[in-house]
Amino acid sequence: MIQPVRNPRTGINDYHFRLPSTSDVEALSTTLRIHQPAWAALPVADRVAALRVWRERLLERKPSLLAAICQDTGRQWESELEADLAISSIERWCRYAMEKLQPASQKASSIPFLTLEQQLVPYPLVTVISPWNFPLLLALIDAIPALLAGCAVMVKPSEVTPRFTEVMQLAIEAVPTLAGVFSFLQGDGQTGADCVRQADLVCFTGSTATGRKIYASAAERMIPVFLEMGGKDPAIVLPGADPEKAAAAILWGATANAGQSCLSIERVYVHESLFDPFTQLLAEKASRLSLAYPDMSDGPIGPIIFERQASIIDQHLADAVQRGARILTGSKACENLNGGWYCRPTVLVNVDHTMRIMTEETFGPIMPVMPFRSDAEAISLANDSIYGLSAAVFGASTDQAKAFATYLQAGAVSIQDAALSAVMHEGEKNAFRLSGIGGTRMGPSAIQRFMRQRVLISKMDTTPSPWWKV
Amino acid sequence: MIQPVRNPRTGINDYHFRLPSTSDVEALSTTLRIHQPAWAALPVADRVAALRVWRERLLERKPSLLAAICQDTGRQWESELEADLAISSIERWCRYAMEKLQPASQKASSIPFLTLEQQLVPYPLVTVISPWNFPLLLALIDAIPALLAGCAVMVKPSEVTPRFTEVMQLAIEAVPTLAGVFSFLQGDGQTGADCVRQADLVCFTGSTATGRKIYASAAERMIPVFLEMGGKDPAIVLPGADPEKAAAAILWGATANAGQSCLSIERVYVHESLFDPFTQLLAEKASRLSLAYPDMSDGPIGPIIFERQASIIDQHLADAVQRGARILTGSKACENLNGGWYCRPTVLVNVDHTMRIMTEETFGPIMPVMPFRSDAEAISLANDSIYGLSAAVFGASTDQAKAFATYLQAGAVSIQDAALSAVMHEGEKNAFRLSGIGGTRMGPSAIQRFMRQRVLISKMDTTPSPWWKV
Repeated sequence: MIQPVRNPRTGINDYHFRLPSTSDVEALSTTLRIHQPAWAALPVADRVAALRVWRERLLERKPSLLAAICQDTGRQWESELEADLAISSIERWCRYAMEKLQPASQKASSIPFLTLEQQLVPYPLVTVISPWNFPLLLALIDAIPALLAGCAVMVKPSEVTPRFTEVMQLAIEAVPTLAGVFSFLQGDGQTGADCVRQADLVCFTGSTATGRKIYASAAERMIPVFLEMGGKDPAIVLPGADPEKAAAAILWGATANAGQSCLSIERVYVHESLFDPFTQLLAEKASRLSLAYPDMSDGPIGPIIFERQASIIDQHLADAVQRGARILTGSKACENLNGGWYCRPTVLVNVDHTMRIMTEETFGPIMPVMPFRSDAEAISLANDSIYGLSAAVFGASTDQAKAFATYLQAGAVSIQDAALSAVMHEGEKNAFRLSGIGGTRMGPSAIQRFMRQRVLISKMDTTPSPWWKV
Repeated sequence: MIQPVRNPRTGINDYHFRLPSTSDVEALSTTLRIHQPAWAALPVADRVAALRVWRERLLERKPSLLAAICQDTGRQWESELEADLAISSIERWCRYAMEKLQPASQKASSIPFLTLEQQLVPYPLVTVISPWNFPLLLALIDAIPALLAGCAVMVKPSEVTPRFTEVMQLAIEAVPTLAGVFSFLQGDGQTGADCVRQADLVCFTGSTATGRKIYASAAERMIPVFLEMGGKDPAIVLPGADPEKAAAAILWGATANAGQSCLSIERVYVHESLFDPFTQLLAEKASRLSLAYPDMSDGPIGPIIFERQASIIDQHLADAVQRGARILTGSKACENLNGGWYCRPTVLVNVDHTMRIMTEETFGPIMPVMPFRSDAEAISLANDSIYGLSAAVFGASTDQAKAFATYLQAGAVSIQDAALSAVMHEGEKNAFRLSGIGGTRMGPSAIQRFMRQRVLISKMDTTPSPWWKV
């Protein structure tokens, strides 16, 4: 079976790949499992060395990698940012691995004749199911720490953006020690299900609907799962905040990658004292952001990558307007330009939580803004969501904003800026509520998700067991 | 509905409790959720102080607690050990909490204008579903760290051993700050399902069959789950080991609590050079262990607590004998003495992995012993299991045994002794394979299972956002 792939700028199916069969996935998984023990048995410094060589092989291929990501996603500057963030993350993970994966020495316990020694044992085969919005970055964010932990890794990227995997596979095959334990596999949802069925541990980034299915499948197979799913991130502008800076930052948080990011700002709550100047500034700034059309480098707002997403954005906008929302700037619906779907940065007021645009994930450059009167009301509005991925808080001071942030049901909060966890991956965070399941995917501890702990408890030879006397 | 409870020593239903309805569970969960935010807002030192007061209230009630556990389980010395281990664990968890839950200060990041601050946010309501084999210890092993993390905790103990919860509830109610956030709820499987439906996080200790259901239910509700399920722990006696010491330790590991422990030794592999002296010693020692009958203090081997388990033991023994196993000492089946079921410590040879006694969890004081010729064969036999909870290795030296242990698919390995993780809870370990899901329940990190990490990423006021210019 041949899978056609749509180009997000032209609407034309200009790429095709062969869908792997269930037995193809089984064969790949068998190969990966055969090579994994030797990979895991290497000293961590050798796995780090292999990944550093791979980084060189990726850098050599950066032009073709970038071209593929641009074709996959139709956008330019986010592709450059994505490639830079992804490639530079390799060195950060290598550093974390050298810190975290050193062999532990024996230590004493509170029982004088017992000593303890901790060991780390990688899961043999990790499956990573990655999404189309940041295809490279969100494939590597789980794959690299899993590899450093000593796992074999099979990545199944979204069938919406599969082109870049060809370059990845070439770079992997250029590193012999890595080639046996790391593979990208183009495929669709059925391929993903097949990959889950082969795994000892699954990492998934994508929609809550698919995350539910993967969690159910992992539960059936009794394996661990790490899910990073939707978000409906709020930004809160507290009294005394600088409306100019807040507007600029929220605009960035809401419209980068045309809003196609789980940690995109999708709701804005502004203290009533700042509501008018803020919305005016936001609308003015938003209206100045132009589309990346007809050329990819013509403006910052690229196309909607996944065609079905454009109709979801349209539905959310129509629902809001029908319920009384007013558009200050932007579009009432996505526009089709030469086959690609585009959505202009759109600011809405007169919105409330009966509207889908305030409660469901829109995944577009849409900024609905609501006023609030008290901190308590702002907290209640911000936390009124099925999601809890991240948030942004702007205050008169960093301390005021941080004090407010501790009431938010979210794992990462940007203070005096928005969407900082897009570029700063050193902190550790959990996704709250339906945004995710499992330990942090950022920061040094993220590597430990891919290992089991084993303790050796040793008894000194002189002390008898309780049953000694019989 | 009234639930009758069988006494394991007499077979008589001499205790009854009212089964809570679904709305009873909902009401309890509502109360716990109301009190949880204030509990979580306390400084960790105050939660530690409350638990230390509770420890005093438990110590005051130790005679009645012990009497209830003895009635629930029909055994004496393990009840004393259990009460001691459980009560002393409170102080250990308090110490871990003081180490692990201190507020983190701000730290720098690799981006000069961004600083990070980590926060820990407890899950509001934790449900603990605990088993009948160590009813007190295995309820508290998850409940205490969850409380210290700032969660409210609802414990649903097994309906087979519910008597001790009355004493627990009295001790809880004697500590006002704790009474609103900690509760034991007598109930059956349906109650357990109701409790899971109310929880933000579930801890379960018990059978793999029930664990599967709980994992599926957690996946449906998209909440995290920690499962500690069955085991079929192997003991391996390497060439050069002291057969006398190994036999004494394995006897303890296999027959304590009449083998009704997930980490009981249920399979023994002995190097052929030691097979005859070892099995002879093991059989001799086993035959000297007498039943705790007619009085509870008459011997170390108490009754089979759960009646249905006695028939599983009988089936495993019959299957083994039918396939050619030979009993060196012990019984061909459990004996009914005055209404209670008892199983004598039983040593079998001529066993292999076609027999249920070598592959399924028996949960009785049964020691099937197989010879092996090489380390490779021993590793392969030990790892030939659906489980991977723990193991025991005996060698000529600690180093030889430890080197062997690193090949075992198990989270805790006792070296030169057996079942040490029953009494030593300071190490960190994961359950491998079908023995469990989720992070370590022992050691300092166990507290972190009950909290989500939140990172605040603060930007200094001077640096503009990328969209600043528009």
